[in-house]
Amino acid sequence: MAMKQEIFIGPVGIGGSHPVSVQSMTSVPLADVAATLRQIQALQTAGCDIVRVAILDRDSLPYFGQVIARSVLPVVADIHFDAVLALEAIGLGAQGIRINPGNIGSPDKVKDILRLANEREIPIRIGVNSGSIEKKYGHGTASRAGAMVSSVMDKVKFFEDNGFFRIKISLKSPDVPETVHAYRLIAGQCNYPLHLGITEAGTRFSGTIKSAIGIGGLLLDGIGNTIRVSLTADPLEEVRVGREILRVLGLMPGGIELISCPTCGRTSVDLIPLVEEVEKRLNAFKTRKKLQVAVMGCEVNGPGEARQADIGLAFSRNKGYIFRKGHLIEKIAPAEAVDRLIEIVGELCRDEAGKIT
Amino acid sequence: MAMKQEIFIGPVGIGGSHPVSVQSMTSVPLADVAATLRQIQALQTAGCDIVRVAILDRDSLPYFGQVIARSVLPVVADIHFDAVLALEAIGLGAQGIRINPGNIGSPDKVKDILRLANEREIPIRIGVNSGSIEKKYGHGTASRAGAMVSSVMDKVKFFEDNGFFRIKISLKSPDVPETVHAYRLIAGQCNYPLHLGITEAGTRFSGTIKSAIGIGGLLLDGIGNTIRVSLTADPLEEVRVGREILRVLGLMPGGIELISCPTCGRTSVDLIPLVEEVEKRLNAFKTRKKLQVAVMGCEVNGPGEARQADIGLAFSRNKGYIFRKGHLIEKIAPAEAVDRLIEIVGELCRDEAGKIT
Repeated sequence: MAMKQEIFIGPVGIGGSHPVSVQSMTSVPLADVAATLRQIQALQTAGCDIVRVAILDRDSLPYFGQVIARSVLPVVADIHFDAVLALEAIGLGAQGIRINPGNIGSPDKVKDILRLANEREIPIRIGVNSGSIEKKYGHGTASRAGAMVSSVMDKVKFFEDNGFFRIKISLKSPDVPETVHAYRLIAGQCNYPLHLGITEAGTRFSGTIKSAIGIGGLLLDGIGNTIRVSLTADPLEEVRVGREILRVLGLMPGGIELISCPTCGRTSVDLIPLVEEVEKRLNAFKTRKKLQVAVMGCEVNGPGEARQADIGLAFSRNKGYIFRKGHLIEKIAPAEAVDRLIEIVGELCRDEAGKIT
Repeated sequence: MAMKQEIFIGPVGIGGSHPVSVQSMTSVPLADVAATLRQIQALQTAGCDIVRVAILDRDSLPYFGQVIARSVLPVVADIHFDAVLALEAIGLGAQGIRINPGNIGSPDKVKDILRLANEREIPIRIGVNSGSIEKKYGHGTASRAGAMVSSVMDKVKFFEDNGFFRIKISLKSPDVPETVHAYRLIAGQCNYPLHLGITEAGTRFSGTIKSAIGIGGLLLDGIGNTIRVSLTADPLEEVRVGREILRVLGLMPGGIELISCPTCGRTSVDLIPLVEEVEKRLNAFKTRKKLQVAVMGCEVNGPGEARQADIGLAFSRNKGYIFRKGHLIEKIAPAEAVDRLIEIVGELCRDEAGKIT
């Protein structure tokens, strides 16, 4: 894929050579400013880069102003139906806005928004959802993905004709193959950064799988510059899933990857609780180093796979074997193996002064 | 992708025009025959098509014979290191075997296995893992995916030279981009059906995401004929994730898809428990009909998205709106909305005699 043009949401670069960023959206009522700010703080701690806040009506604008003033993350205002909300949100300092030009009103109203956003040098996401494509693009006809792309490209042209180029695009559908198809089409047709997501993805279980296939499938081919996992769940869970998708694809700088084998008839220890414990204890290391840790339950695939990891632990019936970059460094009683593994990981993450780096 | 040659594991066709099948592996000790059979029964109920059983040593063979005789699913024997185990497993009636030719012993031993498998007309999976590629293929060099493909193609040639063509191939690695790359390469180079999986995927959380990206990303492009999700978790969870991947991609005949929106500041009802309840109650319908059910928390995207579903429920502040194929059919008090939705789904799944079809 050609490199996409870069835009900035506050300090966070999207496109260009910037790493893929993770977004989420507040879910508490905006009128509860303290709760909204707490949620944004928690999202930041979980690794969220950008937060989106929905502004429902004009009464909400003062709360938005208070949130913007104190948010620890750059804030994108999500606006539907009322162009005045967009103008006011920009005036209050929103670092980006998301509109669906199909429902925001007349072309003149959109022009007002473009003018003000240009003045404040903030980007606009053109967010088309499969559920709200205008009929003229052939909603319900053969290729809805094609209709989504035609719809968005018309909006892009309108933005460009009005001198606006800080554009980000999303094309969301609850249908995964359709979403992937639409993004593959648009990625070849324009150079603006792409915001990936599967809309209405569903529950934590189903939505995680949908988002991993759709977002992950696109990122695999280098398509996508910022992502939001949509779940009917706590937004922190969206960030956790989003970051894991990036980590799995090697797009997250640093962090510890845990690999472990499935339990089969060969497993000689009770592996599930053991691996869950290792995962939990590894989560405590906020390291920027990139480490792969393997925990394997048997002597068949175990030593081979563990050997590729920075630190590997494999079990035979009566022994734990600790590998360091391909070399067996210790044999240990299985009961002591996890403690020792975590100890070694801790040593690897510490600098000379003993601080986790 | 060109259509792959078809093989059969018992009655289950793989490749050709057969639907993608779901596999898992028993995790209880094979010596506990009753527990193994119970696990296979539970896997079948969960929707598993084929089960794999590891045979660790010669002492396990009589247990394998008892399992084979009474299994409700076709059984693949997983064999490492000892060619005699493969020969005996075939003799006992295994409907398929999986070997890693790199660790099974001399070419003559492999020839014995091929001869007997041909006699019994059962397929063999050539399962290469990145952790066990022979050094001559360049383990550790620039492209490990290329090394995996070279390794497997040599084995395929050996099988073919010995008159064996009931071949299935897997190329597993714990690294998702590498796995996808390897399968994309092999899919263009030969016509044998492909068994997809990410090996050592990890815990339920991380492994689900890894498998969804890797397996789902390949299936999106029509690559893959049978899948196994590997998790360090109960094998039933592997089947649940595997089936969900297929359902998300429209590869599962029938079933109910639930779509729901993320919770945002716009949500006017407490959506998370409500959607979780709908998901749980929908699971009770074992229907072959294909239905899409939407539950949406607000009036912005809600009605639009819900309109695309077979049955949609959207909420405004004080009302639930039930849509049937684009038409508003009922307004209802929010507290009664879920019961009514489930009632309507029940009606749609029933035939004229009132039976769920």
